[in-house]
Amino acid sequence: MAHEKYGSLIQTLHEYMEACNHCYDACLKETDIDMMRDCIRLDRECADMCGFLEQALVRDTPFAAPLAKACAEICETCGNECKKHDHEHCQKCAQACFDCAEACKKLAA
Amino acid sequence: MAHEKYGSLIQTLHEYMEACNHCYDACLKETDIDMMRDCIRLDRECADMCGFLEQALVRDTPFAAPLAKACAEICETCGNECKKHDHEHCQKCAQACFDCAEACKKLAA
Amino acid sequence: MAHEKYGSLIQTLHEYMEACNHCYDACLKETDIDMMRDCIRLDRECADMCGFLEQALVRDTPFAAPLAKACAEICETCGNECKKHDHEHCQKCAQACFDCAEACKKLAA
Amino acid sequence: MAHEKYGSLIQTLHEYMEACNHCYDACLKETDIDMMRDCIRLDRECADMCGFLEQALVRDTPFAAPLAKACAEICETCGNECKKHDHEHCQKCAQACFDCAEACKKLAA
Repeated sequence: MAHEKYGSLIQTLHEYMEACNHCYDACLKETDIDMMRDCIRLDRECADMCGFLEQALVRDTPFAAPLAKACAEICETCGNECKKHDHEHCQKCAQACFDCAEACKKLAA
Repeated sequence: MAHEKYGSLIQTLHEYMEACNHCYDACLKETDIDMMRDCIRLDRECADMCGFLEQALVRDTPFAAPLAKACAEICETCGNECKKHDHEHCQKCAQACFDCAEACKKLAA
Repeated sequence: MAHEKYGSLIQTLHEYMEACNHCYDACLKETDIDMMRDCIRLDRECADMCGFLEQALVRDTPFAAPLAKACAEICETCGNECKKHDHEHCQKCAQACFDCAEACKKLAA
Repeated sequence: MAHEKYGSLIQTLHEYMEACNHCYDACLKETDIDMMRDCIRLDRECADMCGFLEQALVRDTPFAAPLAKACAEICETCGNECKKHDHEHCQKCAQACFDCAEACKKLAA
């Protein structure tokens, strides 16, 4: 079953998808939204990709490696943007991003 | 934050999405696949819808009620199909379906 | 085949999904992004829902009616927000929204 | 705008997503469903990935290249499975697969 095969990765993707969507939602409410444009955009890209990969792993996709490789790249880019901002949701999201990128890289290898 | 607002619903949707995708994967490997056509089809419909609703709730969608209403109908139909089959994954999926339908109906109300 | 069954609806959903994603992308680049918060959020909701419904119709989902009903509500809300803004992408998106809402309502009936 | 940037790729992805979902639907109705297991599974994987990439391109994703690379691999695998089967929907889907894989490879390069 997928859970045994992928260990904690499915949970990691899920938590990260939540962190990203929460950061997206919070950025859209920030006073300094002018500074948050890239963060909003990248949060959506990441949340969508992580949700996609999570579903794919759960149905035991034959394409775990190429999808995880793309996901790792997206997570890293998003993490690098999020860590520039002091908002708590951005800092939390950045950490989740880098954890998720690590886990995806391992799977892709 | 979305988690506080929706309580256990996000977790319920997530577990159900997993049960559905696992049932889909297992049905595609069953010897009696001829009997599992509707189950395969409905498992995909449900997994996709629950994954979609879960993401929407996590980003605090303004459309929780209409989406949950559609999701409840899909879950119920899938549960009614799954419970016809004796495979353990179908029985588990049926139970998850009905739990998820209940939770969605409450949200839609 | 789905195309014969649903006539021009699949094309309408597709054009609308494009209009919404284009409006989302353009809003994120507007100088007055402070005014565009709701438009960005609703564009994403709509693009995701229209993309979801489009895929579901193409695979001949048994849930065309409840999904189209939810989609109509989302399109209408997005159209009402978009039409408040003078940007060309917003005005175009608003018109696409209302066309799509009409088509979805017919299907849901 | 995304359409000008990506030329005919968005249309190619869309037609392929439709071919895949139609093949998936038709395979689930075939008398020899026992032979179609892999085709059903791969059609879903491909349809989901092409729908995902199409949406991402339309919103001008910064991740067109890594996503297109993953998509090309999925399309090729699906095409190789589909071309084994004589059903018209499989043969059509195989052709659409290989066209889409080519277009994705160009974008990824």
